[in-house]
Amino acid sequence: MKTKQIITTIILISFSHLIFAAGSLSKAELKQAETLRKAASKSDLAYEILESLTTEVGPRMAGTPGDARAVAWAENKFKELKFDRVWKEPVKLRQWNRGIEKAEIISPFPQPVMITALGNSIGTGEEGVRGEIIHFETFEDLQKAEAGEVRGKIVFISHKMHKTRDGSAYGRAVAARSKGASVAGEKGAKAIVIRSIGTDNDRLPHTGNMNYAEGVTQIPAAALSNPDADLILNQLKRGKVEIGMTMTSDIGDEYTSYNVIGEITGSENPEELIVIGGHLDSWDLGTGAVDDGAGVAITIAAAKLIADYERPKRTIRVVLWAAEEIGLVGARAYAKAHADNINNHITAAESDFGAGPIWSFDWSSANDESAFVAQLEQLLNPLGIVRGQPKSTSGPDLWPLRALGMSTFALRQDGTDYFDLHHTANDTLDKVDPEHLKQNLAAYTVWAFAVAQVPGNFGFNIN
Amino acid sequence: MKTKQIITTIILISFSHLIFAAGSLSKAELKQAETLRKAASKSDLAYEILESLTTEVGPRMAGTPGDARAVAWAENKFKELKFDRVWKEPVKLRQWNRGIEKAEIISPFPQPVMITALGNSIGTGEEGVRGEIIHFETFEDLQKAEAGEVRGKIVFISHKMHKTRDGSAYGRAVAARSKGASVAGEKGAKAIVIRSIGTDNDRLPHTGNMNYAEGVTQIPAAALSNPDADLILNQLKRGKVEIGMTMTSDIGDEYTSYNVIGEITGSENPEELIVIGGHLDSWDLGTGAVDDGAGVAITIAAAKLIADYERPKRTIRVVLWAAEEIGLVGARAYAKAHADNINNHITAAESDFGAGPIWSFDWSSANDESAFVAQLEQLLNPLGIVRGQPKSTSGPDLWPLRALGMSTFALRQDGTDYFDLHHTANDTLDKVDPEHLKQNLAAYTVWAFAVAQVPGNFGFNIN
Repeated sequence: MKTKQIITTIILISFSHLIFAAGSLSKAELKQAETLRKAASKSDLAYEILESLTTEVGPRMAGTPGDARAVAWAENKFKELKFDRVWKEPVKLRQWNRGIEKAEIISPFPQPVMITALGNSIGTGEEGVRGEIIHFETFEDLQKAEAGEVRGKIVFISHKMHKTRDGSAYGRAVAARSKGASVAGEKGAKAIVIRSIGTDNDRLPHTGNMNYAEGVTQIPAAALSNPDADLILNQLKRGKVEIGMTMTSDIGDEYTSYNVIGEITGSENPEELIVIGGHLDSWDLGTGAVDDGAGVAITIAAAKLIADYERPKRTIRVVLWAAEEIGLVGARAYAKAHADNINNHITAAESDFGAGPIWSFDWSSANDESAFVAQLEQLLNPLGIVRGQPKSTSGPDLWPLRALGMSTFALRQDGTDYFDLHHTANDTLDKVDPEHLKQNLAAYTVWAFAVAQVPGNFGFNIN
Repeated sequence: MKTKQIITTIILISFSHLIFAAGSLSKAELKQAETLRKAASKSDLAYEILESLTTEVGPRMAGTPGDARAVAWAENKFKELKFDRVWKEPVKLRQWNRGIEKAEIISPFPQPVMITALGNSIGTGEEGVRGEIIHFETFEDLQKAEAGEVRGKIVFISHKMHKTRDGSAYGRAVAARSKGASVAGEKGAKAIVIRSIGTDNDRLPHTGNMNYAEGVTQIPAAALSNPDADLILNQLKRGKVEIGMTMTSDIGDEYTSYNVIGEITGSENPEELIVIGGHLDSWDLGTGAVDDGAGVAITIAAAKLIADYERPKRTIRVVLWAAEEIGLVGARAYAKAHADNINNHITAAESDFGAGPIWSFDWSSANDESAFVAQLEQLLNPLGIVRGQPKSTSGPDLWPLRALGMSTFALRQDGTDYFDLHHTANDTLDKVDPEHLKQNLAAYTVWAFAVAQVPGNFGFNIN
């Protein structure tokens, strides 16, 4: 870890002379961007790409046959759309197999409950585990608990995530999923079941990745659908609750997946890169329409529309990230492989927050008076998009590149309903509004064109 | 069948002298009804009963251990609420076991799809069946098809039910479920999968009963969730689709369930019965909150509130019907057992259309000018309920009694969203709005009190 930090520091210093120093678009370029916006607002291309991915591939969890089919699909799609360069870069990962998953309340009132294993969880063996529930309202309550009261029991965390436009409630809720098993295991629990990290009330549990802290006893971890979590709470009002659960999930073999990359080569500064994309993998339960088929489709289509209209000055590189869901594995591999060229990664945006309409844009600079930001505002306003703040977040696959100093923009989607579907079987094509997809496509097209044309740079990203 | 028709005819003639000849409520009774309405509008009792049933029993498909638990729960609940008489009447039925159910698209693009076996369907055996899809948009299109094109294939009917307040689209859509297998089997199909008879787009298929016509080859019958039906349609646009499906459902043994009955004995005409109720059984996938825990809870609570306030003149009989879902088995048994007392069944209403608010009331008489109907209108208007028409429908469990001549009222619920949940795993307590339940409770309380007090009768039911 130390060596990495040192290298990062050196890179940070070497970049710190860069400030947001973009020039502005010419009148002609502004006109071109407006024409592109109008065309993209009417284009079905993103929806067609999304329909193709969900129909012809569907579930594509990293390391599964669906993952391999998705990689082949992506290469073919870029070629079919006549991208200038198409290639893939290897990403090594370890497979995880879901297996069977079922659970039931044994007493006081026997009923089946719907669970799904959390990604990376060990299984229970075919014989299953059974035990008395010990209930905590929050992850923090579990942290505070004495080992004595947890030992030999099945931990249940019942906190319900609420809806927010920016998804900020996810960050607070997700610790129960990612770290709950480690804390419960350390205190001697047999297993952990959490209320799904989701805002719906469908009988479809939400999966998602978890990890075991080093050295703790590994225990099985699952999520209950929201109605099933309610049911257990109602039974707990009447006394002790015993449940049984069987999960045959396990860790598999090493596997090589791929970041799949398609480029529209720049006409004036081909070595300078504008990076857009979404992640190609999905969870296995749905068809990954919203997470993140939408991001894949929007960004491929945006690059294609630009290429067909006016060759951009800089290169537009569409990266379809591998294995995001299991820990940004593709993103880390890319950052490692391209660290020596970080200087040429001018700026980037990832679409990975569903298919809701974009409502604001952020950028990573201290200077929010820049003429270019004002131009972007003017270009994006007709799409219902307002100027955000000079402190951009980004999709998760850009984090490793941000850590190396790359600037990002954030085209922020309305995520109010995103966590109704996120990581569930319900993540399917019918949930995507084609009109919202057009708005996203128009925004990415305009933005990517503008940043590919504008002189200067976007400074240094401060996380 | 013939003997039955003759008996029915005799009964019809013997009743035909009855017309809607209700008198009207006294001023004092109107006041009492208003007081009851106000109290019921604030009462949590129906919700408490529903929470109890869904928490302590949950799924209760006819012939399962959940059915037996529901019968015990109902007897206990009536006794706990101090009903005057509580008893049960046997209902003979045949068990059906769901078993495992899974399906997948094999080609051109392999993906799992979510199915559920239709009630009463045979299984496929553990080895499953696989075959090419032959697609029909509607049941009628299947009926018109040549056997030659269907033989050896798996029939897929893709018609999607639309939303209506009165649920009328269900009647049109449901033939695919109830009769599809017979028609497909007759033409030599291997199996049939239908798009769920439901108005949602959740990844949760809708079960429901089906039957085989006599003499036809029995084939397995299943429903796909709406998103999975869409997926197959999208793959069909690209060519032939082959699917595989495995269902281990089968017919079980004879079983005795029970109609569970609780009465509030009338003070002046105890032999005269006002029948209310809902069906006690549910499908096995959800906890039967909406279908028909709500009806059970509303009607038990209404009788209880009346008993606690003012003993009614006539007896209020709450019948919790057994085995409705598998063919009105309890309702038929009741009608047979009580045919000789049909004269004393003054009128009835069943709550079996979910937990949405009631918006109108119908009655079964030719005379819509009756003073009593005007009084009902006055009493129910403050709940947002308007006068309907003098041609009442009824919940399905009243059909056998209507055939014997009993009049019914219909307190019609808004069913716009009912078929989002109907017969799915999503039918759980969280889907019920406690405020809607209070409105239903108030309406049933007022109506049952009014028909228990008013002199005269409600005439003869003409179906």
